[in-house]
Amino acid sequence: MDLHGGNIYKLKRENGVELLDYSSNINPLGVPESFKKAVIENFETLEKYPDIDYVELRQSIADYNGCSIENVVVGNGATEVLFLYMKAVKAKKVLIIAPTFAEYERAAKAAGRDVKFFPLSKDFSLNENLLMDFITDEDIVVMCNPNNPTGKFQDLEKIERIADFLENRNKKLFIDEAFIEFVDGWKEKTAFLLKHKNIFILRALTKFFALPGVRLGYGLTFDEVILNEIRDIREPWSVNGVAEIAGKTMLLDNLYIHETEAWIKKEKIQFYEELKSLKGIEVTPTETNFILIKLLNDDAKSFRKKMIENGVLVRDASNFMFLDESYIRLAIKDRKKNEQVLKALKKVLPE
Amino acid sequence: MDLHGGNIYKLKRENGVELLDYSSNINPLGVPESFKKAVIENFETLEKYPDIDYVELRQSIADYNGCSIENVVVGNGATEVLFLYMKAVKAKKVLIIAPTFAEYERAAKAAGRDVKFFPLSKDFSLNENLLMDFITDEDIVVMCNPNNPTGKFQDLEKIERIADFLENRNKKLFIDEAFIEFVDGWKEKTAFLLKHKNIFILRALTKFFALPGVRLGYGLTFDEVILNEIRDIREPWSVNGVAEIAGKTMLLDNLYIHETEAWIKKEKIQFYEELKSLKGIEVTPTETNFILIKLLNDDAKSFRKKMIENGVLVRDASNFMFLDESYIRLAIKDRKKNEQVLKALKKVLPE
Repeated sequence: MDLHGGNIYKLKRENGVELLDYSSNINPLGVPESFKKAVIENFETLEKYPDIDYVELRQSIADYNGCSIENVVVGNGATEVLFLYMKAVKAKKVLIIAPTFAEYERAAKAAGRDVKFFPLSKDFSLNENLLMDFITDEDIVVMCNPNNPTGKFQDLEKIERIADFLENRNKKLFIDEAFIEFVDGWKEKTAFLLKHKNIFILRALTKFFALPGVRLGYGLTFDEVILNEIRDIREPWSVNGVAEIAGKTMLLDNLYIHETEAWIKKEKIQFYEELKSLKGIEVTPTETNFILIKLLNDDAKSFRKKMIENGVLVRDASNFMFLDESYIRLAIKDRKKNEQVLKALKKVLPE
Repeated sequence: MDLHGGNIYKLKRENGVELLDYSSNINPLGVPESFKKAVIENFETLEKYPDIDYVELRQSIADYNGCSIENVVVGNGATEVLFLYMKAVKAKKVLIIAPTFAEYERAAKAAGRDVKFFPLSKDFSLNENLLMDFITDEDIVVMCNPNNPTGKFQDLEKIERIADFLENRNKKLFIDEAFIEFVDGWKEKTAFLLKHKNIFILRALTKFFALPGVRLGYGLTFDEVILNEIRDIREPWSVNGVAEIAGKTMLLDNLYIHETEAWIKKEKIQFYEELKSLKGIEVTPTETNFILIKLLNDDAKSFRKKMIENGVLVRDASNFMFLDESYIRLAIKDRKKNEQVLKALKKVLPE
């Protein structure tokens, strides 16, 4: 399995070098100090099994999202929540809006669902009228917002139209908002505000807080049937005690949150503009912390190899449904690293 | 769910008091210093996704068990490895030797297997001739060794006879050795030494090292078919980065290992003898870090309540298959705590 298109460990084992990893989209501000402090002060909580109901953790997440603890399910990374949802939901057919993250398909198929894809428009925008015309007997529509790998974000009005349409037909909408906290003013833009019973929101707590190793994801929904079903089928204690500590402290770390917001607001414009000025590539405007790039004179495989030779690991995006071998994806990191990547790009791209 | 018979978090929320938790069987020596140090020095590794192949972690476990990395699968606690095995294995019927840990049945049923039980003898010994006579069309035999909740340990000769018998009939043997490290001289007694292809060994790394909150379990086997199948169906990154750190450091912490071995060797005899001298109970000899007790004049529910009133949480063992309401289970902890428990027992039991 090489799900990030860049298994940095395998590359390190094979080449013996550390690469600048622009294939995975993690906050470059690094591990929050508040988290380190909390772990050091709470080592002894790891001597017990985690709370099987995760009451305090779910309360922190509920407070962060202005909802009740009843609306929150937690998982061992967003991955577990996704797989649980696909198993829990009563559905035969799943429609995935693509190109997008490949795990939705894997999870749906692992749960025995049939999968179909609805293609985004050529510029990766979502035409909701076409989508609604397209839908027939699918039970769930799956979308990622902002979308991985395109970086495009759908506004609340559009989501509401789709959710209403699906609700009237007794269908569901699954929205992966793993990257929404990198969107400017996201708290006014999340689909959770709609409070639709047929919507399930997936979040990955540890991307924004630079702790993917800690494994903490959660789901938000007003759908009691799904909530009960997930409670019934989940394996006990799947969320580890360090993830519990992380969730209970980081969501209150306003300094870290503000610094991250300030960094991404500035850098996503600056890095985009710098990339746009380069020849040989076409850059997709982004609302989050990664950028989809079309290579005009090269293919992703050869380009990725050249970039590795220049110390940078990029994401070959050719294996995303509906993309071809001309696409790569770049993370957005801090100024210094982004400049190193620009330097490498200038070497690899034609003058 | 109240799988430990004592949800200490729920009890604390309801009663507002901290109890001495003798319902869960964790090393009382607490979090190893080597682990704390390693976490503090490696916080930044949590900024990356874990190695999806867990090469270094599996190598540490392989070294600890004197085998090759190929024979090791890791999971988010022993629970995940158990559920993966039950899904991965080609089997219709599972035979569980009982009374034992309830999760084998849950995992087998979650994977759509039929479950049957083989009863241990009256003194909780395992009569392997009766077992072999009993087996008909079952595809897997599941046992826990040392057994939870009886504390009994089956020797290698007996396991070998059973494994041979099953191998000749193209059947498998699943052995949960979660508590084996508390058995004196366990390295010469583990069924992994048999190298039978049809054996799968489950281990829970974080019980012996007092870190159940960290979630790290593993499986050992020479069965390549199962190994490949598990690799195919597992969810990516299920083992968190802190568990990786734990596995890579604790297994080398010989001081902690020796101290734990010295504690349990002494305390399991002393606590057993002290309990045996009490009236109103019958104590099962144990080879591990917990003790099964039969109440002669009380039922488990009322006894558990009285013990809570005296500050101690015991495991009501009446819901184990083939046990009745006269059984409770006690953990073995350090001298000071064991003495507190003895004091509480003397108050609750008849003179």
